[in-house]
Amino acid sequence: MTVVPPLTLSALHADYRRGALRPTDVVEHWLARPDAQRAAPVWIATIPPDLLRARAQVLDAVLAADREAALRQPLFGALYAVKDNIDAAGLPTTAACPAFTYAPAVSAAVVDALDAAGAILVGKTNLDQFATGLVGTRSPYGPVPNAFDPAYVSGGSSSGSAVAVALGLVQFALGTDTAGSGRVPAGLNNIVGWKPTREAISTRGVVPACRSLDCVSIFALTVADAARVFAVASKTGSPVELRASAGGFPPLGGPFALAVPQPAQREFYGDADSAALFDTGIAQLEALGASTQDFDYAPWRDVAAMLYEGAHVAERHSGIRAFFDAHADQFDPTVRGIVAGGLRFSATDAFDAAAHLASMKRELATLWDRVDVMAVPTVPTTWTIADVLADPVELNRRMGYYTNFVNLLDLAAIAVPVGFRADGMPMGITLIGPAGSDWRLAELAQRMQVARGLPLGALDAPLPPAERLAAPADVAHVAVVGAHLTGLPLNRELTSRGARLVRKARTAPRYRLYALPGTTPPKPGMVRNADAGGQAIEVEVWALPMAAYGSFVAGIPAPLSIGTIELDDGPPVQGFLCEAVATAGAEDISHFGGWRRYLASKVAP
Amino acid sequence: MTVVPPLTLSALHADYRRGALRPTDVVEHWLARPDAQRAAPVWIATIPPDLLRARAQVLDAVLAADREAALRQPLFGALYAVKDNIDAAGLPTTAACPAFTYAPAVSAAVVDALDAAGAILVGKTNLDQFATGLVGTRSPYGPVPNAFDPAYVSGGSSSGSAVAVALGLVQFALGTDTAGSGRVPAGLNNIVGWKPTREAISTRGVVPACRSLDCVSIFALTVADAARVFAVASKTGSPVELRASAGGFPPLGGPFALAVPQPAQREFYGDADSAALFDTGIAQLEALGASTQDFDYAPWRDVAAMLYEGAHVAERHSGIRAFFDAHADQFDPTVRGIVAGGLRFSATDAFDAAAHLASMKRELATLWDRVDVMAVPTVPTTWTIADVLADPVELNRRMGYYTNFVNLLDLAAIAVPVGFRADGMPMGITLIGPAGSDWRLAELAQRMQVARGLPLGALDAPLPPAERLAAPADVAHVAVVGAHLTGLPLNRELTSRGARLVRKARTAPRYRLYALPGTTPPKPGMVRNADAGGQAIEVEVWALPMAAYGSFVAGIPAPLSIGTIELDDGPPVQGFLCEAVATAGAEDISHFGGWRRYLASKVAP
Repeated sequence: MTVVPPLTLSALHADYRRGALRPTDVVEHWLARPDAQRAAPVWIATIPPDLLRARAQVLDAVLAADREAALRQPLFGALYAVKDNIDAAGLPTTAACPAFTYAPAVSAAVVDALDAAGAILVGKTNLDQFATGLVGTRSPYGPVPNAFDPAYVSGGSSSGSAVAVALGLVQFALGTDTAGSGRVPAGLNNIVGWKPTREAISTRGVVPACRSLDCVSIFALTVADAARVFAVASKTGSPVELRASAGGFPPLGGPFALAVPQPAQREFYGDADSAALFDTGIAQLEALGASTQDFDYAPWRDVAAMLYEGAHVAERHSGIRAFFDAHADQFDPTVRGIVAGGLRFSATDAFDAAAHLASMKRELATLWDRVDVMAVPTVPTTWTIADVLADPVELNRRMGYYTNFVNLLDLAAIAVPVGFRADGMPMGITLIGPAGSDWRLAELAQRMQVARGLPLGALDAPLPPAERLAAPADVAHVAVVGAHLTGLPLNRELTSRGARLVRKARTAPRYRLYALPGTTPPKPGMVRNADAGGQAIEVEVWALPMAAYGSFVAGIPAPLSIGTIELDDGPPVQGFLCEAVATAGAEDISHFGGWRRYLASKVAP
Repeated sequence: MTVVPPLTLSALHADYRRGALRPTDVVEHWLARPDAQRAAPVWIATIPPDLLRARAQVLDAVLAADREAALRQPLFGALYAVKDNIDAAGLPTTAACPAFTYAPAVSAAVVDALDAAGAILVGKTNLDQFATGLVGTRSPYGPVPNAFDPAYVSGGSSSGSAVAVALGLVQFALGTDTAGSGRVPAGLNNIVGWKPTREAISTRGVVPACRSLDCVSIFALTVADAARVFAVASKTGSPVELRASAGGFPPLGGPFALAVPQPAQREFYGDADSAALFDTGIAQLEALGASTQDFDYAPWRDVAAMLYEGAHVAERHSGIRAFFDAHADQFDPTVRGIVAGGLRFSATDAFDAAAHLASMKRELATLWDRVDVMAVPTVPTTWTIADVLADPVELNRRMGYYTNFVNLLDLAAIAVPVGFRADGMPMGITLIGPAGSDWRLAELAQRMQVARGLPLGALDAPLPPAERLAAPADVAHVAVVGAHLTGLPLNRELTSRGARLVRKARTAPRYRLYALPGTTPPKPGMVRNADAGGQAIEVEVWALPMAAYGSFVAGIPAPLSIGTIELDDGPPVQGFLCEAVATAGAEDISHFGGWRRYLASKVAP
């Protein structure tokens, strides 16, 4: 009897943990799939069965030897696919151009990282040749059919990876994203597409499209699964928290500001269903706390146009110059036309474009002073494969109406499913934020996905509950007791660092609060007390960027300190304590239950 | 009687503070200088006397109203000069090309910042046209003579700014640096030239040379003065600490690793004196704690060559394209030839160059895993103005032997004087570090300058004592008491964050130390004690990047906390304390005087 492995990573690990599954079961289930599910047009190459079985047996042994140790590998025993412009040693890299094929000696850095985290690579997936396209039709391995209706395009260029996930052939897959290749096919196949901050995932071992813009992206059925993969993959690049602005990106608890394109600038090419689904998405975000404001999409569109209509297209030639110059006849005609389009620009044009882009980047970055997140439709609408083959350049351009500015402006983006048109075709919404905001976007994307509650991919399987995301430790939580409380004089030491109030809470009933004499502004000191006479004291728990926490702590004067505070309703949290020695002779105000009530008692008549 | 104002900022402020000087005195002293000191070739334009007097009177009034408030402006009442490719409203900007002249409506961001900090702009200085040169001869306003011997070149392109400082005409000056324009003329005029991390100082309002590489730079007589200016000017750009690597750049206390070019690759074009002065510089750095290692300078030279010999030269055309295409005949012939050299490259060439540079940057950045700082001669030698006019391209190329790679590789650099040749011409040494390492470089540069003890500029005035640099609060100091001490199990929580041991110290005799039961690894808890029975406890003070301090604090478990510890020999410092309540029943080990001696007592027989 064949075991059917779960679709999501958490369910998979739950089964491994309770002994209901071995990696070999997962691999055998894959090998038992119909040939059509393991061949073109979704796949360009797959791992030979004997090698796959050998890999599974090694993991079986690891699991048998120490189950908990095995499952500390965050991607243990999960199948994954890799877009065929990313090297995986042992399989050829084609970039969907047979004449370009080479056998990489080593895997891309990100593939090594996924393997080291216990994941099982099953194969390389089809793509728009040299990742040049957003449609999934520009490949000699055949157009990739949409997971919902094979007459429709899959979207691209990461076509095979997205469809492999949507069909449940793998738990997750890698794509790449230069113009929108990590988002468009996610939107068109009802899955999650995470386009990280540039350089968050190493591009070593990736065939260049536009080298300065290329990102490795992640497809998964849920945001939580994509986050597990990102947590591993992003160890190969520059930590995203280093890309964050000085204020960092603490989670969006409570209300947040959302930018959406002005209604007149929203383009759906006559697809009223898709337009309505975007409205649904905005309404959902508003239900999650978004305060929506329109922004002028025109300059963002102008930046987007630079990718294919200006000197930047010469970067596509630069990345594969020697091969293109010798073998232009081996290219897909549409891709050849695009790459050749770069030949007419001068070096001065390229530097002009770079300067213009830098200037637009500065100008458009001011949006992030006003809003936390931007939302756009992932795609405006969709077309059939026949439509796209008949008009390959124009329909591709339309497909990128909402995507092409993102990497040029160094932003992060996550596409999540939003719903289905009347004909059953899925549509997505893309959340966009500044470089470094990946984890903030992911938290919001998960809340969005859970709130929508759509089935997984094309699988008619229910969405699992939300998970706590494996975000890095880049947010500090601190409980404040006195002058840092909301509205009190030192609160700006928190807010100026981008901190946000998480919640009000009370300590465990084991503390005493003293009014410290001679402090400016007036401050209390809280001391944990072993005696029975302790009180519960009101505190506020604030979240602030870890990178800013140090300077906050550094400003705390004696006799105060930052230690650990026990709460009456949750795990302990760091917060303000006072040296016991300093409370000698101070007024004990514990019976007020908190600094704010003590202050109120002082001003009352 | 004319008051002679002091040359350095600290002395100037000391005089202002004790009422011995008003800004009007400083301005009148400037206005009373001989005409030759206020005109070409050093100056292209100066502020009219009436405007300068009006500015001084405003500052006089500010000083009279509240002396301490006035002197909190860090550059209050100091004269400065601005290279004439930086906008200053009220004066024309020429870039040393009269046909290019325009009247800027607003000042460059950095000029506004200096003015807001109380500095007094006196004029705009000569430069190699469009900042294209390292010699100071490429200007229709005349070659700028060296401050030590007018037959020799000043160096460039920031020729006038450097000479104005060296002659004591102003307290400081702004230059720009693309190839080495902020370092070469500093080296040739015995002053300090600070070439900050790219984007640390805004380039808004600066005429582009190579826009992606251009930096505003600072000239001053001392490192301390340059640091005061940098502290102000860098508020206009991206905080350098955000550019620092994850580990940050804590100060180099104690031994540090220094890279110098292999002897065979050191080029002085036959100038034995300059070669000997570089050896002197290295020996001085070794006396300051440097452990020297040679590195292969060849690939760094290859990168340097990209600036003038590859597609990057088209960026010089891009920055002034419309003007050049219409007015090439108005250019200095040498500058025209260089800019026109960019016309032969394609956009693909430009992207190829960018990709090659990115790859070299990754490769060469591994040097910083092995060393803290690099040192190179600021220039290999020097030439007379006549020499350079006779062979303008080749001698300029030689002048940049040690400079051109710095901005391409996104490094920070500070040139400091090292000594004089037998003929009296000064030479410098340039300290180089990764992006974001500016303050570390400055601290070392000050130690170097003080150790060398050379007179100031061309002024025969003695070097003032070292100052505490106004570094931003980007380094945290923490006193550790127990398991974080050197060699103990948790010490890596410091070292993995780039922390460095500053010193060993003892607390004030007011603490008690307890062995906390049941801790893993074993930990002590230190509590301040009001009673007479307190002890002095041995601690270590560590410095770590502020951006990393938060995550360090966040990892500290109860009952420990970070508070303030009194030391017996200096100001208090943050460090480890323990909640008093947790020491009930714990063994009091205060009499050991420290955790390490307690541990030793446990292993002793």
